[in-house]
Amino acid sequence: MTGPLTPQGPRPTVAMVAYPGMTMLDLIGPYDTLSQMTDVHLLASTIDELRSDTGVPFRATGTLADAPANVDVVFVPGGEGTADAIRDQQVVDFLADRGARARYVTSVCTGSLILGAAGLLRGYKATSHWATREMLALFGAEPTEGRIVVDRNRITAGGVTAGIDFGLTLLAEMLGEQSARVTQLMLEYDPDPPFDSGSPLTAGDFEIETIRTFVEPLNAEIASLAAV
Amino acid sequence: MTGPLTPQGPRPTVAMVAYPGMTMLDLIGPYDTLSQMTDVHLLASTIDELRSDTGVPFRATGTLADAPANVDVVFVPGGEGTADAIRDQQVVDFLADRGARARYVTSVCTGSLILGAAGLLRGYKATSHWATREMLALFGAEPTEGRIVVDRNRITAGGVTAGIDFGLTLLAEMLGEQSARVTQLMLEYDPDPPFDSGSPLTAGDFEIETIRTFVEPLNAEIASLAAV
Repeated sequence: MTGPLTPQGPRPTVAMVAYPGMTMLDLIGPYDTLSQMTDVHLLASTIDELRSDTGVPFRATGTLADAPANVDVVFVPGGEGTADAIRDQQVVDFLADRGARARYVTSVCTGSLILGAAGLLRGYKATSHWATREMLALFGAEPTEGRIVVDRNRITAGGVTAGIDFGLTLLAEMLGEQSARVTQLMLEYDPDPPFDSGSPLTAGDFEIETIRTFVEPLNAEIASLAAV
Repeated sequence: MTGPLTPQGPRPTVAMVAYPGMTMLDLIGPYDTLSQMTDVHLLASTIDELRSDTGVPFRATGTLADAPANVDVVFVPGGEGTADAIRDQQVVDFLADRGARARYVTSVCTGSLILGAAGLLRGYKATSHWATREMLALFGAEPTEGRIVVDRNRITAGGVTAGIDFGLTLLAEMLGEQSARVTQLMLEYDPDPPFDSGSPLTAGDFEIETIRTFVEPLNAEIASLAAV
């Protein structure tokens, strides 16, 4: 359960930019964390049904073309479709436009590469999924280790599940720590991973090499897009 | 990113039962954890578009009526629509039928109350979202504290985000610890909650009372359904 827990004062507006091939958990972690106390607009280039990179059929509730002219937060998730999102001029233009005026410009996982392609991370420290982090340099950002990296109003989070930590951090930043604490208890976010393999600092060589090999084609694609 | 990381040997089949008003994160945590290495069937009473309890439009990829006759895992998420799911005879009948033959009968959050309504938890220790856990007794289960509670082949998880710990636990149980470790690294699941309010054991009185008040109507509805 997530539930409408009403905070004091006005609700910040959040534009979440979805696209085909995004990782659903990158989006839903922040979505179900933030949507209780903010007005989240789930946006995409199209209102037609999309598929996540694991095949979940979903739909945005509005198009980028119909989005509010100003939002407090711009957010973009990562996923196997990251390079396709960078090729979608509507996505990149929307992020560049709203991002230039937003209070917070944010991402989870490889979403930061899309922010980079929109020119929003030049001269900023930023993070990404650990296996793609170094690619940020191609967009003028300073790749920085960290589950959540904050540089002025840019807040970028690490791979996939970092989106939950990110959502709570942003909620506290905008609405105060108690809002985040209530939400954390609602989501029973008291993590207890059964293994210690969630970071390249603690995982074994086999795990690291398996992921690096899987991510390599995406990194190559991003490099070719950044070179244009 | 989540990615198709292929394990050795046959892929277990997982039937995930979705419904209107479910919590998206309850489902997507396990879905994006398990779908890399198992065959997940995302099922619902209907193939029409549904909405999660936070308003995300999504769709199942198949109906309960067209589901495989036998699956290795039956899974059901929780959410504000839990009582409606219990009233949906197709959902309850499907869980009772496949659950009777599945290797694992599983849930996240208030999904365990739906398993209970299907008669699958009588005489079993089980958990739920912390604020609804005691309701399990109405279905003959033994409410048990724990982020993941295993009793024979019943695996029930706590509220919402417990689904990620659950997914990794089930993956290790079915396909070995290395499969779970690779997945954990892919999802960069190295949690670092910014606050310590994820459990009623550590949260403050205000947070606990806010959630209890919010959950009270659902508990009352579940009690009236269990009394029938």
